[in-house]
Amino acid sequence: MSGTLYGLGVGPGDPELLTLKAYRVLTSAPVVAYPAPDSGESFARSIVAGFLKPEQREIPIIVPMRVERFPARAVYDKAAAEIGAALSAGDDVAVLCEGDPFFYGSFMYLFERLAGAHRTEIVPGVSSMVAAAAAAGRPLAARNDVLTVLPAPLDDAALRARIETADALAIIKIGRHFNRIRHLLQTLNLEAASLYLERVTLASERVLPLRAVAEDAAPYFSMILVYKGAEDWIADLTGVRR
Amino acid sequence: MSGTLYGLGVGPGDPELLTLKAYRVLTSAPVVAYPAPDSGESFARSIVAGFLKPEQREIPIIVPMRVERFPARAVYDKAAAEIGAALSAGDDVAVLCEGDPFFYGSFMYLFERLAGAHRTEIVPGVSSMVAAAAAAGRPLAARNDVLTVLPAPLDDAALRARIETADALAIIKIGRHFNRIRHLLQTLNLEAASLYLERVTLASERVLPLRAVAEDAAPYFSMILVYKGAEDWIADLTGVRR
Repeated sequence: MSGTLYGLGVGPGDPELLTLKAYRVLTSAPVVAYPAPDSGESFARSIVAGFLKPEQREIPIIVPMRVERFPARAVYDKAAAEIGAALSAGDDVAVLCEGDPFFYGSFMYLFERLAGAHRTEIVPGVSSMVAAAAAAGRPLAARNDVLTVLPAPLDDAALRARIETADALAIIKIGRHFNRIRHLLQTLNLEAASLYLERVTLASERVLPLRAVAEDAAPYFSMILVYKGAEDWIADLTGVRR
Repeated sequence: MSGTLYGLGVGPGDPELLTLKAYRVLTSAPVVAYPAPDSGESFARSIVAGFLKPEQREIPIIVPMRVERFPARAVYDKAAAEIGAALSAGDDVAVLCEGDPFFYGSFMYLFERLAGAHRTEIVPGVSSMVAAAAAAGRPLAARNDVLTVLPAPLDDAALRARIETADALAIIKIGRHFNRIRHLLQTLNLEAASLYLERVTLASERVLPLRAVAEDAAPYFSMILVYKGAEDWIADLTGVRR
């Protein structure tokens, strides 16, 4: 009897934002896998660290953070082989996914390698996008707003066209694209309507007007929400706020 | 000492998709409020019915379902007054929100009336959109996809322009707009790339190709995900599937 592969959404960072289901699956799975950088801690694992038990087998999936281009085929081939062997041996495997497994996650690289041969269940999670709106204290989208989610690595022309026509707008995967995105929002007269958010729901959370960001770089787990027409509200947000 | 107003995301329908935090806040709040139709059961309340205690005071917010146009000012004014009185008396009030409170929710109508005068906390939740992708068994958005979320009540011209330029696409609030949306997708040669989902994560969940939907109407809690280029995958989904 083969085990079940779980794509487990663990939410944006606060361990309390795991779902009851994710908690149940996590604490009963004999094998737990998660993406990890080649040096330093796995963010996904850190979210659930307090729930893990010593007897659970852990499979870190070491994804080099230097390369921009994914999928890193060899990494996922190897991880899929190791996870597949555990499943074939009858063990359930919970793969930890930051936010939600199917909302811009890397879980898809394992899913496409394993779901054909193994029973698979996706446990949806709280995405960092809705957690960002909660941290901002302002609805992400309302009534009949069209919501556009834009990955920052897209080129300027593609971004510009989408930003201009958007009602509600979340720009994700900011990281090293921060300066370019800020400049683009400046040229579109939208910097004053933009809110910058970093590590939402963690103790190190930062929420501030994009204009007030002194740095010229951002961590990977950052986001910009553009609230067109809300310039005054954003100007009143002085510094960090929950 | 005034109580705290909680906007509590209770997820798409499965009670196990409450977060640990929502569960904690829900089970410790002396007052619980929720939207309810003028006849029949409140969906938000039904999700958490198993967690409620007899000693909790309940405030149903009766929103007539006949009117398409919101906000129904008088309804929210009255509810805000009742909830505000409980907060001023020192009681925490948990307002149940289907999915996530700030993702197209009606909670904003209470938030804008109460957040200025009372301590407010938003507890983000699992949106029905990511739960739909989990039920579909296919990522909603990946890599550098631009994701567009389109409310079905928009007019055809607005919908058409967005649908044509979208990479990944979720059409929400289908309800009585079902036939019009289906026709529009047909004229854009996208019906075969469209997946219909209803009541995801509930026992009555339905997930099927849009082409296979026999009815010419849909419940309010339905959604269409458009997976451009995935016509073959959708054609293979015969009937209901989890």
